[in-house]
Amino acid sequence: MSKKLFMFEKPLGMRDTLPFLYEMKKRVRQAMADEIEKWGYEFIETPTLEYYETVGSVSAIADHRLFKLLDQQGHTLVLRPDMTAPIARLAASRLYKDGNPLRLAYNANVFRAQQHEGGRPAEFEQIGVECIGDGTIAADAEVISLMIAMLKRAGLQHFTVTIGHIGYVNALFLEILGNEERASVLRRFLYEKNYVGYREHVQSLPLSSIDQKRLLQLLSLRGCGMMLEEAKEVIHCEEGKRAAEELAALLRALGMYGVADAVKFDLTLVSHMSYYTGILFEVYAEHVGFPIGNGGRYDDLLEKFAHKAPATGFGIRVDRLIEALGESEAEPNIECIVFSQERFAEAIELAAAKRREGKRVVLQHISGIRDIDAYSKRYPSMTYLLGSKEKE
Amino acid sequence: MSKKLFMFEKPLGMRDTLPFLYEMKKRVRQAMADEIEKWGYEFIETPTLEYYETVGSVSAIADHRLFKLLDQQGHTLVLRPDMTAPIARLAASRLYKDGNPLRLAYNANVFRAQQHEGGRPAEFEQIGVECIGDGTIAADAEVISLMIAMLKRAGLQHFTVTIGHIGYVNALFLEILGNEERASVLRRFLYEKNYVGYREHVQSLPLSSIDQKRLLQLLSLRGCGMMLEEAKEVIHCEEGKRAAEELAALLRALGMYGVADAVKFDLTLVSHMSYYTGILFEVYAEHVGFPIGNGGRYDDLLEKFAHKAPATGFGIRVDRLIEALGESEAEPNIECIVFSQERFAEAIELAAAKRREGKRVVLQHISGIRDIDAYSKRYPSMTYLLGSKEKE
Repeated sequence: MSKKLFMFEKPLGMRDTLPFLYEMKKRVRQAMADEIEKWGYEFIETPTLEYYETVGSVSAIADHRLFKLLDQQGHTLVLRPDMTAPIARLAASRLYKDGNPLRLAYNANVFRAQQHEGGRPAEFEQIGVECIGDGTIAADAEVISLMIAMLKRAGLQHFTVTIGHIGYVNALFLEILGNEERASVLRRFLYEKNYVGYREHVQSLPLSSIDQKRLLQLLSLRGCGMMLEEAKEVIHCEEGKRAAEELAALLRALGMYGVADAVKFDLTLVSHMSYYTGILFEVYAEHVGFPIGNGGRYDDLLEKFAHKAPATGFGIRVDRLIEALGESEAEPNIECIVFSQERFAEAIELAAAKRREGKRVVLQHISGIRDIDAYSKRYPSMTYLLGSKEKE
Repeated sequence: MSKKLFMFEKPLGMRDTLPFLYEMKKRVRQAMADEIEKWGYEFIETPTLEYYETVGSVSAIADHRLFKLLDQQGHTLVLRPDMTAPIARLAASRLYKDGNPLRLAYNANVFRAQQHEGGRPAEFEQIGVECIGDGTIAADAEVISLMIAMLKRAGLQHFTVTIGHIGYVNALFLEILGNEERASVLRRFLYEKNYVGYREHVQSLPLSSIDQKRLLQLLSLRGCGMMLEEAKEVIHCEEGKRAAEELAALLRALGMYGVADAVKFDLTLVSHMSYYTGILFEVYAEHVGFPIGNGGRYDDLLEKFAHKAPATGFGIRVDRLIEALGESEAEPNIECIVFSQERFAEAIELAAAKRREGKRVVLQHISGIRDIDAYSKRYPSMTYLLGSKEKE
C-alpha cells in the first residue's frame, strides 16, 4: 500500500456519513427519539471508553470483537460494544436507588471489530431503551410496543417482531438433557439457525423416542399465538410452563396495545446476547437480511454491578433501519447567494432575511469560486449580487 | 482498589451524562445545529477510529494525548482527537472535486487522553463547521459570524471573540529573529500566555534596542480595531503588512454582519493547533476559564491529503458552553399513570391520548413498583387507575 493511497483509507469497517445519508439518519433518529420521550423514557449518555473489567467482560460480545487499548495507568479499556452493560453500570451506581422502575434511553455508536472487509460496519449507531427494575409482563409488552411505535414513526411499513423465551428453551433442554453442557450444544444450533444440524444432533443423542420427539417438536413452535398452548404441553417443569404462560400474557398485553398483528412467536429464538433470561425478540424488515433491532429481558445483569434488579430493553440499528427504509429522494433544499465585494452588505442582509424565514442559504463571495458553472449546478436556486447596483 | 469498587468506575476523564444534563445538551446542540443548517452548511459524520498514519499524525494534538490501539492487521489506530483532520481527509478524498467552496458541519465527540483526574474530560462533544476551498476574508468573516450567531441562539449573552493572526506573529518573529527555531521559543511563551517570561526572554536576546522594542510592542497589540494601524507599522515585511490588512478587512466584514461589538483583536494569540496559517480566534465566556470555542484558517492542511485548498472553520465545546450558560431549572415534564392489571387497556388508551397531545407519559404497572411513596415523588403528575372501575 503506497503512502498516498493509505492517506485516504479508513480502518476496517469504518464509514464516513455523507450529507445525503446524514439527513436521512437525522430524520429517522429524531422521529424515534421523539417517540421514546413521549413514552417517558429519559436519555442518558455514557463514555465511549469503559474499563474492560467492568463493562467489557459482561457485555456478551465475543472477546475478539472488542476494540481494546491500554490506558496510561495500564488498565485495559474497551470501546463500548453495546449500550446495555454501560447503562446497567450507570443505573447500579447512580440512578437505581429506591428499587422503583427506571426508564432510560440512549442513542449512541457501539463498536465491534471486524476481521474482514465484508461490508459489516465496525461502528454503528443504536437507539433504544432500558426499563430497569420492572419484572412485570407489562414492562415486556411496553418495550415491544414502543419499539413498534418507533419503527412506524420512522416510516417503516413492513416488519415483523419475532418473540421467543430463552427461559423456555433452557428449561426444556435442561429437563430433557440433564445438564447445561449438552444444552449449550443444542442452543448453538438454534443460534446459528442450523435446523438440519439440530435434527441430526437430536437423533444422535441417547434419549427415549418421546424425548427426541419433544426436542424436535420445539422446531415447530413457531407462528401465531395459537402455538403457545402446544408449547405448554411439550414442557413438563414448572419453570417451562411459566415461560409459556408469560408469552400468553404478553400476547394479551400486546393485543391491548393494538400491535399483536406485528408480532409472531418463535420458541427456537436464541440470541448472541448471553445475558438474556426471559422473553426476547428480534425485528426483521423486508429485504434486509439481518435483524434491524433486538431486545429482551435480562434479570441477572444488574447483579453483576451489585444491585439485583429485573430489566428489559432493546436497541434498533439505525444503519439497517435506513437500509430497510430505502433511499428517499429528499435533497436538502439549500439556496445560494453569490456576491461581489461591493454588494457584501446587501448580500448579508438578503441571506439573513431568508434565514429568518427558515430557509437554508449559502452566502458565497465570488472570489472564492474557482468554477462558477460547476458551482451553479450544486444548488437548486442561485441569486447573483454582482457589480454596483446601478448597473443592473 | 477492591473488585467491587472498580465495578463502578469509569476510565480517567470519562463521564456519564445524566438525564438533566442530557436535556440541556440536547436543547443547546439542536439550537446550534439549526443555525448551522440555516447558513447552508451540510452535516457529515466520520468514524471514531482513524489510522494514526493518516489523521492521527496531522491532527496537531500532542502524541501523548492520543488514545491509540492496534487493529487486528497491526495498524495503529487513534480515537479522533479533533474533527478538522478527519474532515480534511474526507473532503480531499471524496467531496472536494471542482475546487469550489465546500461547507461542511459536524457534531461529534473527540478524545484526548488525560494523565491525571484533574477535572478535564478525556472525551467531549464539539459542534462546528469547516469552510473548505475558500481563501477570501469573506469566508473568515462568515465562520466567525456564524459562531457568534450559534452562541446567541444557544442563549449565551456575555462572550468575547478574540481574533489574532498567526501569519502576522510568524512574520514578525522571522523578520527580527531570522530563524524558525528562535521564533518557536517566543511563540511558546505566547501560547502559555507567559508575558513575563516573554519579556525576559526578549531582553536576553542579542538584538538592537529597536528590534527588542518591536518584539515588546507586540504585547500591546491587543484591543479594538484601532490597534490594527499600529500593528501595520510595527512590522516591515510584505507578508506581515498583508496580515494586518487582512484583519482590517475582516473587521469591516464583521461590521457588515453586525457582530463587530462581540470581537476584539489580540496579535499575541497563538493556538495549540499548529495547523493554523492565518486569522485565528478563540471565544471566551464570563466565568469560564477556558475557551468555549476556537477556530481559524488552515490553508496547508488539505495538502497533506494531496489536495491543496484554503480552509477555515471552528469548533465549539458543548461542555464548556453548558458551563457558561449555567444551570437551568427546566425539569423534563413527565406525567405518570400507575395502573393495575384490570385497567391495563384503559391505561394504555389514556397514555396514548396524552402522547398524541405531545405529552410525555410514563405508563407503570403497579406490580412493578416497590415503594409507591418514593415513586410518586418522582413525577410532577400522577394518575392512578387501580382496581375495578365501578368501585371508584
